[in-house]
Formats: sequence, structure tokens, C-alpha cells
Amino acid sequence: MNYPAGMKKTTTAPIQYSNRGMSLEHDLNATNEYYRVTNRAIIYKKPTPVTIVKVDYKSRRDAVIKEGYFKTPSTTDYNGIYRGKYIDFEAKETRNKRFFPLSNIHVHQIDHLKKITEHGGIGFLIVRFSTLNLTYFLDSSKLLTFTNEHTRSSIPLTFFEEHGYRIYDKFNPRLDYLAIVDLIYFGGKSYE
Amino acid sequence: MNYPAGMKKTTTAPIQYSNRGMSLEHDLNATNEYYRVTNRAIIYKKPTPVTIVKVDYKSRRDAVIKEGYFKTPSTTDYNGIYRGKYIDFEAKETRNKRFFPLSNIHVHQIDHLKKITEHGGIGFLIVRFSTLNLTYFLDSSKLLTFTNEHTRSSIPLTFFEEHGYRIYDKFNPRLDYLAIVDLIYFGGKSYE
Repeated sequence: MNYPAGMKKTTTAPIQYSNRGMSLEHDLNATNEYYRVTNRAIIYKKPTPVTIVKVDYKSRRDAVIKEGYFKTPSTTDYNGIYRGKYIDFEAKETRNKRFFPLSNIHVHQIDHLKKITEHGGIGFLIVRFSTLNLTYFLDSSKLLTFTNEHTRSSIPLTFFEEHGYRIYDKFNPRLDYLAIVDLIYFGGKSYE
Repeated sequence: MNYPAGMKKTTTAPIQYSNRGMSLEHDLNATNEYYRVTNRAIIYKKPTPVTIVKVDYKSRRDAVIKEGYFKTPSTTDYNGIYRGKYIDFEAKETRNKRFFPLSNIHVHQIDHLKKITEHGGIGFLIVRFSTLNLTYFLDSSKLLTFTNEHTRSSIPLTFFEEHGYRIYDKFNPRLDYLAIVDLIYFGGKSYE
């Protein structure tokens, strides 16, 4: 925390544990912004897909959406470019302590990651077990291995421990998932 | 057009010139779908960015957005992967017959295309002069040349004629812009 000169942390307000409970999406947005600002990668979260039904045009600038619906996303949430490669991933949180329920991902999102890999892109999943405060990187090859070999509707935490990489919380970038991409795809050093 | 068996086109309704006036977005969505179905490329339009303010949750499945606003997009509208390369472009229509007004593109969208190129991706602009029914592909390198060398607020049609590539209307894919990517980036044959 940076406090302005001369200021001290004297507040008796409840201590914020918000960083710990911060949503995965929030952490990834901060990470991607850091990557962009430092010019390491250009990766964005896609907007939430919405079907817009009714719009009030008070003026051209002040259009207000009055009726809309959430659409099922066709693809994953995040994509962009890193070291000349196309990057594509989905990020999900679960409060479950032992399993990641596959109902969290749509089948066509898994298909999408498969196609991305076939076309020479880099695809993966970032899963946070939020009650355990554990975040894992699972390469799409491992995800596909699992879905091909198992009919189970959830991936056990032990599978992530064995086939994934843990992403540790840091200050900046908050979740350095590209270090794992370096390791897997660019022969980078071991990641801790 | 396919008509159900036994049916003939006997309607005297006005002939549909809709294909001609079909929006560029519609044509590009059809093109990208064709590319995906034929497994040539995985390219999607991003959802329209919206700030959602109020949502009615009648049930978990039937959430209705009751108040929302359009956001300025941070990036371009289309991206994906083709021949292992990251593809990124913006598509715009103008009714102007001689110029493409640069007010149609946000400055940060041009910056975005520049960064994509620096990171080894393929970026471009697709512009349709809708009253002339002319569609052009303009590589980001040429777009940046123009914005660097001119303080003008619009790109003349002649610049597209000289530095761009015309995309001809076809049946399938409707606007084969990847043929131009082949030509510029992969040493493909001349495109007509």
C-alpha cells in the first residue's frame, strides 16, 4: 500500500481482505492491463455477449438499453497475442474444494480451445478454487486428455495438481500466467 | 435460394436487392462462419461492449437487463487465428463516395492495430463505400503510413485504390479477405 506522504494507516475500519477474495476476473484484468502497459502481450477480456432488444435514443450519445438478455458465449472469454502467438483461454472460479465441475464450461468452449490448438494457437484454462485460494493453469492439451479419457462431469483438484501449474499471487503482474506459457511453449525456465 | 419441394418463386413482391445492401457486418459474420465451418480460420466478431447497470432476476435463467449503456470499444471488432497467426481487424462502412472519414475509427483502435503488428500479428481495416458498393482491405501498415504522413481527417477513396485491395462480393465466402492475407503475408497468388 502506498500512502500519501505524512499519512499513516490509523484507520480502525475493518481490515480489507479484499485482495484475497478478489474475483479471478478482476485479477486477470489487472494482469492483462499490466501486460499491455509493459508491452509484454496484448490480451483482453471479451465483452459479455448480450442480445439488445430495446434501446431508448434520447440523443445519439445517450442511448439507454432498456431491454437485453445474456447470451451463451460462443467462444472463450480472453484472447490476444503474445510472442507472435495467438493466445486464447477461459477462466473460471469454483467454491468447490475438491472438484472443478465441468458444467462451468460450455462444451463448445472446450471445442473452441481444441480448434485453436489445431490452428497453431495456445489455449488453456485458468481455474481458481476460491475457498482454497488456489489458482491453476491447465493447458488445453491436458484438458482434452481429461475430457477424452473420462466421462466424469468434474475435474478433481488432484488432476490440476498433477497436470496443471499453480499460479501464485504476486503484486505485479498479479497472476503471471504468461510465465507458464513461456515454460510450456517457449522453453522457459521453471516457474515457481 | 432454396425453395421447399414443389414451391416456385411466384411472388410479385418487390425483388430483394438486400444482398447488395446487406451490411458489412452481416457479410463478415457469414464469411467468418464459412471460414469456421470449412476449418480455414477461427475468427469471430467480439460482442458489443455494454455497461450493465440494472438486471431483473426473475429466475437465474431469465435475467433481463433493464438498464445498460454502450461503451467505447477498447479494441477492434474482429479477431482470431489463421495459419497460426493472430488476426485482428476493424470493419467500417461509409456512405461517403469519395472519402472514408477517420472519425469512424477511434484513435485507440488505430493504436491497437499498431501494437498488434509490433507483436507479430496481422492487422487490417475493411472499409465499405456502401453507396458505391466497393469494399477494400487496407493493411495496418498502409493505414499507419497514412495517419503518420497526413493530418487529414479522412482517407480518400483513391488511397484505397492505390494502397488497398478490393474485396469482391462472392457467394461463399462472401468476402474472401483471407485470400488477401494469403497474398500479403504468405506469398499467395495474385488475388482477383
